[in-house]
Amino acid sequence: MARRFIAQYGPGERIEDEVFLIRSKDLRSTTQGGLYIHAVLTDKTGQLVARLWQATEAMFAEMPEGGFMRFKGRLENYKGNLQFIIEGIMAAEAGSFEVADFLPVTKNNIDRMWSRTVEILRGIKHPDLAALVSEFLADEELMRRFRKAPAATVMHHAYIGGLLEHTLNLLEVALRVMPFYPKLSLDLVLTGLFLHDIGKSKELSYETSFAYTDDGQLLGHIVQAAMWIDKKADAAAARTGKPFPEQMRWVVQHIVLSHHGQYEFGSPKLPAVPEAVVVHYLDNLDAKTHAFISEIENDRDTAARWTNYNQALQSRVYKPDVCGVRKTPANDSTKSR
Amino acid sequence: MARRFIAQYGPGERIEDEVFLIRSKDLRSTTQGGLYIHAVLTDKTGQLVARLWQATEAMFAEMPEGGFMRFKGRLENYKGNLQFIIEGIMAAEAGSFEVADFLPVTKNNIDRMWSRTVEILRGIKHPDLAALVSEFLADEELMRRFRKAPAATVMHHAYIGGLLEHTLNLLEVALRVMPFYPKLSLDLVLTGLFLHDIGKSKELSYETSFAYTDDGQLLGHIVQAAMWIDKKADAAAARTGKPFPEQMRWVVQHIVLSHHGQYEFGSPKLPAVPEAVVVHYLDNLDAKTHAFISEIENDRDTAARWTNYNQALQSRVYKPDVCGVRKTPANDSTKSR
Amino acid sequence: MARRFIAQYGPGERIEDEVFLIRSKDLRSTTQGGLYIHAVLTDKTGQLVARLWQATEAMFAEMPEGGFMRFKGRLENYKGNLQFIIEGIMAAEAGSFEVADFLPVTKNNIDRMWSRTVEILRGIKHPDLAALVSEFLADEELMRRFRKAPAATVMHHAYIGGLLEHTLNLLEVALRVMPFYPKLSLDLVLTGLFLHDIGKSKELSYETSFAYTDDGQLLGHIVQAAMWIDKKADAAAARTGKPFPEQMRWVVQHIVLSHHGQYEFGSPKLPAVPEAVVVHYLDNLDAKTHAFISEIENDRDTAARWTNYNQALQSRVYKPDVCGVRKTPANDSTKSR
Amino acid sequence: MARRFIAQYGPGERIEDEVFLIRSKDLRSTTQGGLYIHAVLTDKTGQLVARLWQATEAMFAEMPEGGFMRFKGRLENYKGNLQFIIEGIMAAEAGSFEVADFLPVTKNNIDRMWSRTVEILRGIKHPDLAALVSEFLADEELMRRFRKAPAATVMHHAYIGGLLEHTLNLLEVALRVMPFYPKLSLDLVLTGLFLHDIGKSKELSYETSFAYTDDGQLLGHIVQAAMWIDKKADAAAARTGKPFPEQMRWVVQHIVLSHHGQYEFGSPKLPAVPEAVVVHYLDNLDAKTHAFISEIENDRDTAARWTNYNQALQSRVYKPDVCGVRKTPANDSTKSR
Amino acid sequence: MARRFIAQYGPGERIEDEVFLIRSKDLRSTTQGGLYIHAVLTDKTGQLVARLWQATEAMFAEMPEGGFMRFKGRLENYKGNLQFIIEGIMAAEAGSFEVADFLPVTKNNIDRMWSRTVEILRGIKHPDLAALVSEFLADEELMRRFRKAPAATVMHHAYIGGLLEHTLNLLEVALRVMPFYPKLSLDLVLTGLFLHDIGKSKELSYETSFAYTDDGQLLGHIVQAAMWIDKKADAAAARTGKPFPEQMRWVVQHIVLSHHGQYEFGSPKLPAVPEAVVVHYLDNLDAKTHAFISEIENDRDTAARWTNYNQALQSRVYKPDVCGVRKTPANDSTKSR
Amino acid sequence: MARRFIAQYGPGERIEDEVFLIRSKDLRSTTQGGLYIHAVLTDKTGQLVARLWQATEAMFAEMPEGGFMRFKGRLENYKGNLQFIIEGIMAAEAGSFEVADFLPVTKNNIDRMWSRTVEILRGIKHPDLAALVSEFLADEELMRRFRKAPAATVMHHAYIGGLLEHTLNLLEVALRVMPFYPKLSLDLVLTGLFLHDIGKSKELSYETSFAYTDDGQLLGHIVQAAMWIDKKADAAAARTGKPFPEQMRWVVQHIVLSHHGQYEFGSPKLPAVPEAVVVHYLDNLDAKTHAFISEIENDRDTAARWTNYNQALQSRVYKPDVCGVRKTPANDSTKSR
Repeated sequence: MARRFIAQYGPGERIEDEVFLIRSKDLRSTTQGGLYIHAVLTDKTGQLVARLWQATEAMFAEMPEGGFMRFKGRLENYKGNLQFIIEGIMAAEAGSFEVADFLPVTKNNIDRMWSRTVEILRGIKHPDLAALVSEFLADEELMRRFRKAPAATVMHHAYIGGLLEHTLNLLEVALRVMPFYPKLSLDLVLTGLFLHDIGKSKELSYETSFAYTDDGQLLGHIVQAAMWIDKKADAAAARTGKPFPEQMRWVVQHIVLSHHGQYEFGSPKLPAVPEAVVVHYLDNLDAKTHAFISEIENDRDTAARWTNYNQALQSRVYKPDVCGVRKTPANDSTKSR
Repeated sequence: MARRFIAQYGPGERIEDEVFLIRSKDLRSTTQGGLYIHAVLTDKTGQLVARLWQATEAMFAEMPEGGFMRFKGRLENYKGNLQFIIEGIMAAEAGSFEVADFLPVTKNNIDRMWSRTVEILRGIKHPDLAALVSEFLADEELMRRFRKAPAATVMHHAYIGGLLEHTLNLLEVALRVMPFYPKLSLDLVLTGLFLHDIGKSKELSYETSFAYTDDGQLLGHIVQAAMWIDKKADAAAARTGKPFPEQMRWVVQHIVLSHHGQYEFGSPKLPAVPEAVVVHYLDNLDAKTHAFISEIENDRDTAARWTNYNQALQSRVYKPDVCGVRKTPANDSTKSR
Repeated sequence: MARRFIAQYGPGERIEDEVFLIRSKDLRSTTQGGLYIHAVLTDKTGQLVARLWQATEAMFAEMPEGGFMRFKGRLENYKGNLQFIIEGIMAAEAGSFEVADFLPVTKNNIDRMWSRTVEILRGIKHPDLAALVSEFLADEELMRRFRKAPAATVMHHAYIGGLLEHTLNLLEVALRVMPFYPKLSLDLVLTGLFLHDIGKSKELSYETSFAYTDDGQLLGHIVQAAMWIDKKADAAAARTGKPFPEQMRWVVQHIVLSHHGQYEFGSPKLPAVPEAVVVHYLDNLDAKTHAFISEIENDRDTAARWTNYNQALQSRVYKPDVCGVRKTPANDSTKSR
Repeated sequence: MARRFIAQYGPGERIEDEVFLIRSKDLRSTTQGGLYIHAVLTDKTGQLVARLWQATEAMFAEMPEGGFMRFKGRLENYKGNLQFIIEGIMAAEAGSFEVADFLPVTKNNIDRMWSRTVEILRGIKHPDLAALVSEFLADEELMRRFRKAPAATVMHHAYIGGLLEHTLNLLEVALRVMPFYPKLSLDLVLTGLFLHDIGKSKELSYETSFAYTDDGQLLGHIVQAAMWIDKKADAAAARTGKPFPEQMRWVVQHIVLSHHGQYEFGSPKLPAVPEAVVVHYLDNLDAKTHAFISEIENDRDTAARWTNYNQALQSRVYKPDVCGVRKTPANDSTKSR
Repeated sequence: MARRFIAQYGPGERIEDEVFLIRSKDLRSTTQGGLYIHAVLTDKTGQLVARLWQATEAMFAEMPEGGFMRFKGRLENYKGNLQFIIEGIMAAEAGSFEVADFLPVTKNNIDRMWSRTVEILRGIKHPDLAALVSEFLADEELMRRFRKAPAATVMHHAYIGGLLEHTLNLLEVALRVMPFYPKLSLDLVLTGLFLHDIGKSKELSYETSFAYTDDGQLLGHIVQAAMWIDKKADAAAARTGKPFPEQMRWVVQHIVLSHHGQYEFGSPKLPAVPEAVVVHYLDNLDAKTHAFISEIENDRDTAARWTNYNQALQSRVYKPDVCGVRKTPANDSTKSR
Repeated sequence: MARRFIAQYGPGERIEDEVFLIRSKDLRSTTQGGLYIHAVLTDKTGQLVARLWQATEAMFAEMPEGGFMRFKGRLENYKGNLQFIIEGIMAAEAGSFEVADFLPVTKNNIDRMWSRTVEILRGIKHPDLAALVSEFLADEELMRRFRKAPAATVMHHAYIGGLLEHTLNLLEVALRVMPFYPKLSLDLVLTGLFLHDIGKSKELSYETSFAYTDDGQLLGHIVQAAMWIDKKADAAAARTGKPFPEQMRWVVQHIVLSHHGQYEFGSPKLPAVPEAVVVHYLDNLDAKTHAFISEIENDRDTAARWTNYNQALQSRVYKPDVCGVRKTPANDSTKSR
């Protein structure tokens, strides 16, 4: 049976049996001395403040913070917001629900995005780059993670499939832009864009929430990707029986290492080949415009013309749609092609 | 009669009557006690070391540094380089030569670039933006300068027509890129790109060399452009009889003011609308890739795989053409369409 | 009837009918399940925590946050602070109260400060600068705002009339200082000081609170002022029939554009003429000393010898009056002349 | 007999016996194999390129670089510049010439400036500050150096008496400015200004050229001054029999330590009392305007409207005297009072 | 009788008469309208939330915030934490308790650390440095404070005796390291390490909590130390009858002044002698490794593998003990010798 | 036959047949119109200005810049310097001379340093770290380069064997220092120090001069080392049949990646484990003290007490040996053990 999401409930309704992700829990005492549990429950559409009266410490221990549970209860209106009064809890067995229902997910179709990505990458003509990219495409476990990973924990494309969506958009843009830079290699730019954030497949975990893995924090996704390129280039050479050209290997690694464009953003090298410049600026173009749109759409104060100050963007964002282009609710980037 | 350029001369030839721009001059004494003039003469294809033996102080005074003169003499080989032995000098009357022969100039056709630019800008649909752009297009004196100005004194597009070439390339790129950002206004981006560097039409003088004008240095091209937008918006309102929307005016000015993206590069404001982000990154993409290619092509040490360190690019540039794409000599960006 | 201000009330008193500005409001439930409204009411002398028991949602909706209302009730002592128990509320019709009573206002006389400002500016002898300044003085709407605007939203002179007070103090100081710099132009410094922050007349709104306007945030007051100078110089030329000298226009605009002295503070240009240096440092001298004094006077912890760390001042401020000069309560800068 | 200065000589003249400071010397060989000495001679009005033909190594060794010598010879014109052909050299005995003739010196009268400085400082009313200042004034050796020291090696007031001139100008300015800041202590500001750069009396040597001393470089003038204040405050206490108030001592030291206003300019503390803010900004006002004027006056290219880029000022300086105030040749700041 | 510490109490126990340091206190009203005091009591082993029901304003006034008092009452379990219900309060007379029981204190033996410190310093062979160090060692009041002071208010060695522990560890390390740098002076390094943070003896107060003194904030410990060296060198000269060598004095002061290694950390000079480099890096090595260990050990979330982001360390700290070396509970650095 | 070095020759001597490295060459014409070659010849002890009169273009082409040649001729005194008049040139066959004679080389014995390094590394007890280190030690080609590589192109240890000398000194220091940090792992620190700069074995070429390789510039030595660790850990696992622990791998890589300590020095991550802090500071201690000593010893102006400003050290260096410890000419760090 299809899940009903938090965003679809209203006050006065009952929930007989539904799984929620427990973001946080708190055991509190009433003024009369009794205990109650205050919890925040979420799915991918929003969050719900919940209370369980006449609680015990055992009940509290049973609820896994950051994990899943089944709930029963009723929805009330509390100071203008929805409040969930829990009447019963039960374990939620793995397999009995979809983890994907609890994390935000791309609005685009992952399979269609993936087909198009592969199609573009299959168009790479330079034999060495084609061989290198093939090694990555053939790594099923890595590609599985690549298709699901978010592009960031916050900021831009912070949802399941976000890394793929970001990467594909860049590939599409590069196909159109590069004819205007005939002295640069389209193949090298496509390879660089495909691999620039691939380390995030491992840097970010996305099982129940978006977080950095240990190696993500100790090494970072750009060094991670450089190491993978090393091994995939070796594997390509082994497969084709033809050594992978040294300069080509270094340049591809360099493009990935330098794509943050500044030392303080974690790039150990600054762009030294023109194609690295392209990867750096197109990546920023896509990431920053998505971050701006995301700031505008997520701003809760609909009366305000400015969002709050955003540290990463170094600015508040001006929200008025002065040209009247943002009327359409969704941004389905596959549809527009 | 068509001019013969420095790059076309060889040792042993004579020059009977040709105009050169005098980059520098020096009055020196020989070991025998006589005087001679050592000068560097240029046209847009290169420079020539010249000597005038048995010189007098009067001759020296007659030669305008940074100005033009007619020369007669012979070409010799001196330590592997061409040397011009001057045998006679004469004033070069204005009008008797083409100033454009002495400054580097775009390899593309200015008229064709201009037609295409106007064509793209005529495609702007939003009535207010179309009206504003029309005011600029109707300013013949400004457009005349816009078509001739370089985009910079050094670094990128530092040649006659460079500003137009840079602007047109950005407009073409935006036409292809913007469909992938449906929540942003193409019209606003096109307007922003057209106007982002238009202040350079006045900031840079290009009569006999590329230099900053006084107001260019005191105010800068981005504030200059903001002031023009103010006046052109007033003019558009006067012409159409419809007040120019305040928010639209501010947003267009903001895009221009913020397009350098960082305070230390002279932007008094950082991008606060998504379209400003697009203008900022596309501008950098075009300017920096041209600067990289220019570094590679102008590097004199053909044996070296790296250029010298470039302060503005914060890097040395790696020159090997690892993908074999830079074989074609010229980058005619109009041809490629 | 003269208003009685918050600072003049004590516990045990009644308020029969008085207007307050509602800074914030909150609908809360009691432990018995009833509703009450918790609000913060202000006027220019302070703020008052208020409670309205037995509230309804309708009453809550009726109270305009950031707006005005008439109140009736009694004052109690609650944990050492005054608390206002609201017994009745009524709409406050515009015109029935003075908005100025609700915003902090300069302690000096605005009319007297304005007369003195005009007197000093009328002393400018250079004909072009005098003509330019006259155009500004003749702009009644702008001068009306100039006289009322604060000089900042926080930090220094953050009160009605603050911009005028700050500007006048700078003019007075310049009159005394400039004789020690005979190679610099007093007229240019006076003009620069008059115009340096004039953009704040538009950048800051001060109707019911101090905030940045949209154009204030998108363009900033320094670019705004540069644009006004452009138009006023044109107007002066039209009026006098004599073209406004280009260099003079640029230099005045440059002084305004560069007066923040550093790129990261929003100046697109750094001072390049000596008079710009004077405007920059005198402005800082006045703004920063006022900010320091303000930090000391507003610090609530009278036992502490240091204020809290102030991000903008990059320091905590040391409060002891080691020389015994801060005994006098107020700083009436007009009286001291 | 009064010295004749370099600036007063012309080509064709003879010098029979004159002392010069030898800035640099070089032993070179002619194309014929002989030796000659190339030297640069200076006095406070300029420098002179000199040649001594038929030189020997002994002659070369005899000439003290950075020291003085007597010269005989003739003046010629060489490529438009004056050249001195040395015909004889002799030792220059100390006492037989004025060292002050060889270093640039203030255009103002040192004694008159000193009297006025003392007069102002004697006006300090606060007994502790007056006692502290008296200790400094009573240190004859230190005051002797204070009167002669330059305020810097380059940049501003880089001449004998420059430190005194800079300090006095600040005191005069403070007397006029402080009435507009009635909550601040004039006495504390005067004391701070007097002592802020006093460490330069020791940091800079000025016997034959302006240079940093070893302790100047290892400790810096601001820490040096803080240590002197410590000792002078002890001495004042010993003399008056009254302990010097601790807070007062710290605050005076703090004003000196923080007067550079930024860590990267060598201030270990940032201003934390309002009077420190005054000292910081007035110091910069005086130093920077002098540096700007000095850049303009020393610029050799009279045809150019801009000076070269000055690293310390972070700008080129715009030279046109748009208000027509710099007609008078000299800046005698004592005369103008 | 030995004190029983907070860490040793459990729920259900009674406290008949014990002194606590009152970190904070608050007078609150119950829902019934009565008053109660909420306080936080501490000793060096932890803190205790306390409540005193049926309180009066007089009782509240009697309790000194930041001071000591005797308490009687019972311990309860409140939401998993210990809560102290106060039944009686009494003044705590000075002398009737040990202040040291209320501040964290080094785990090492202060006397033993001091003996070893003196022993190492007595090994300095250079007569001038030995004389200077002797003057410091002979200053009993200063040495008394030196032995008790913490090395910082937070971050590293933030406990009684921490400055001594940090200094001794550095001396021990230097003894082992310096043989590998034979061209550097061990004596100078030992002197520099002994004095580098000695100003903290005065900069930090540690009577009832760790805080900066007024002079600590106005001057800083590094300038403070430089001034002491000045006076102690004078005293050494007076005692020995031999002038203290100027260069030696400056170099020792320079090492102290430059030991923070960067201007923005408050060093007015950067290291200019090799021994200053050694002092700077060894100091950082010791301080930073202690800070890292401290972050790991104080992190409350035992389930997490990363600490929170630490601004001063510019990083989160990775906690897993991958080499299995942190099994031993305490870090008794004297024991390991 | 043993080579005689440049430093051992004097004027008047003859050179019958000696190999030199040709640093630069120049074909010039005499005033009589003939040609001569001006060249700079070097070996590891210094350089020699040379002239070959009656030269031809063929001779000039024959001389390999950056390569070796045999020379014959006589030594003269020219303006106080030695000048070599070339009388004959001949090809220098590879194998007929020692390349090592032409590059500066460590004063210590490479074999002895290597034995000691291996000895220390064999002392690593942790089995995984020992296995990883063994893989590196077993890579003969890499270890051969490791033993010969300089530690930098300029600055510190810029000589053959410099990387080994720097690494060994760090290992020795760590052995002595780590007992004072018992909560940190000595094994991890030793491993980190061994590997921290190992990438320089490949980043720097040292065949005829010290330069960066292409991959050195595109990737950098720290990413290079991280990639090697990845492969060596795989190899260790394959050899031992036991998977290499993931956390251990990441931590070792992290220590190498973060050892520059700041983003702007090319570290993509900042230290997040205590052992990384140790490696960072010990590395700096050794590198910077060597750089300071090197500045002092290489300063040519023996009269000056300060070296020139050194950009990398951000300071001039004070040269006086105030403690009298630098009398011994050489710094044989192996001898001192």
